[in-house]
Amino acid sequence: MLSKSQISFINSLKQKKYREEQQLFVAEGAKIVPELLNSSIIVKQIYATSDFLRNNLIPSTVERFEIKENELERISSLTKANEVLAVCETPNYVLDNESLTGKLTLVLDDIKDPGNLGTIIRIADWFGIENIVCSSETVDAFNPKVVQATMGSIARIKVHYVSLTEFLQVQSLKFKVSVYGALLEGKNIYSEKLSSEGLIVIGNESRGISEEVQKLITDKISIPSFSHYKSGGGEAESLNAAIATSIICSEFRRR
Amino acid sequence: MLSKSQISFINSLKQKKYREEQQLFVAEGAKIVPELLNSSIIVKQIYATSDFLRNNLIPSTVERFEIKENELERISSLTKANEVLAVCETPNYVLDNESLTGKLTLVLDDIKDPGNLGTIIRIADWFGIENIVCSSETVDAFNPKVVQATMGSIARIKVHYVSLTEFLQVQSLKFKVSVYGALLEGKNIYSEKLSSEGLIVIGNESRGISEEVQKLITDKISIPSFSHYKSGGGEAESLNAAIATSIICSEFRRR
Repeated sequence: MLSKSQISFINSLKQKKYREEQQLFVAEGAKIVPELLNSSIIVKQIYATSDFLRNNLIPSTVERFEIKENELERISSLTKANEVLAVCETPNYVLDNESLTGKLTLVLDDIKDPGNLGTIIRIADWFGIENIVCSSETVDAFNPKVVQATMGSIARIKVHYVSLTEFLQVQSLKFKVSVYGALLEGKNIYSEKLSSEGLIVIGNESRGISEEVQKLITDKISIPSFSHYKSGGGEAESLNAAIATSIICSEFRRR
Repeated sequence: MLSKSQISFINSLKQKKYREEQQLFVAEGAKIVPELLNSSIIVKQIYATSDFLRNNLIPSTVERFEIKENELERISSLTKANEVLAVCETPNYVLDNESLTGKLTLVLDDIKDPGNLGTIIRIADWFGIENIVCSSETVDAFNPKVVQATMGSIARIKVHYVSLTEFLQVQSLKFKVSVYGALLEGKNIYSEKLSSEGLIVIGNESRGISEEVQKLITDKISIPSFSHYKSGGGEAESLNAAIATSIICSEFRRR
């Protein structure tokens, strides 16, 4: 049986302010929660149906509450609650500027849509990219919608929030790291030489890469369109931010 | 001023049943609606703020209603209503089996998420793919969430609904078209020879390509993962359906 204070505590974690205050976040569902239990993320509490508790190994350090499905509905952020909700400790990653050399890293300039950020975290995981460095205006990675869209990759990818211009200045001036960015006037990504290390900047969903950040791009690239409609009748003007990320990562990694 | 019957008429079009009955669909927003007005889609009615009506050229064949923002909120499907809502005729595309030879075509096996379908339509537009052939269980392309996620590409891409196994049998047996599908045991897409024509099958978000459809795949491909976590500690198990589509389309087109 869920108490009123438990319900309001869990629901408060839907807000960034309380997540930061408590250093906690929520993850849901029979696919993601077992993955978190199996990861370096510290799971504090589990609210689950008797079925879930019977069928999953849960470490003794995790406080567990058996609840009914209709109780789960009251704390769930999902359209349809799914067996289990976990309250987890927000990991605190330290961004060591030097540690990024020799690696590929994604840099997000104000990604606002939680679904896009979650999908980008999942793409990073697929392509073996350990770190994502975000502008402070990028949506919070521990927003419930982001966590769900990562499908568990949130447990493996380190997401950092920084002042982007300062970060890029240090990276390109001090560490001589290449800063790639997709811009209209960029070179065709399919034929351009791409390094196995560097930073890949992804711009905001509507306005792209901001002017201040554009100035710090050292290698301008572009994804060519094959639209039939180039002359008249309209054409696809752009790709969704997560889609562009996946095509760029695929090009860097296949070589 | 909006009448009650107008409000209930427009809201009814959020349901597939009424969209099919009326052969109408709804599109919204100051980005998409002008694109539709400029396309082959027949726009029947426009409900818009005075600002929108002043700043856009609207053909005289379109019935227009000037409404206030708070009225727009009452008929909008968006989190935040955006200047204009259009009621459009659903285009009726005829699928000519023979017309697909020599082209790339996407085939969707039960894509259920409206955001994914909308994004896939946008990807098709970017990569110059004219037709998308869907199983009858795939989400309706004129669902408002799909229309919005296409960002206007719905005006250019022909989406067809068919019995997928019958369609694939005709294509592969009669027209000798290659049927590509991403499967775990498939050949590495980065090194495999890919044709400039053929069908690319994308599976359902949770169960992938169905067994019956798998039997009709002639060329099995796969997108390799570069995850660092292959041995223990979990790994990214899969890519989102739209992300996989974009990587596959990019590989077919870059060559």
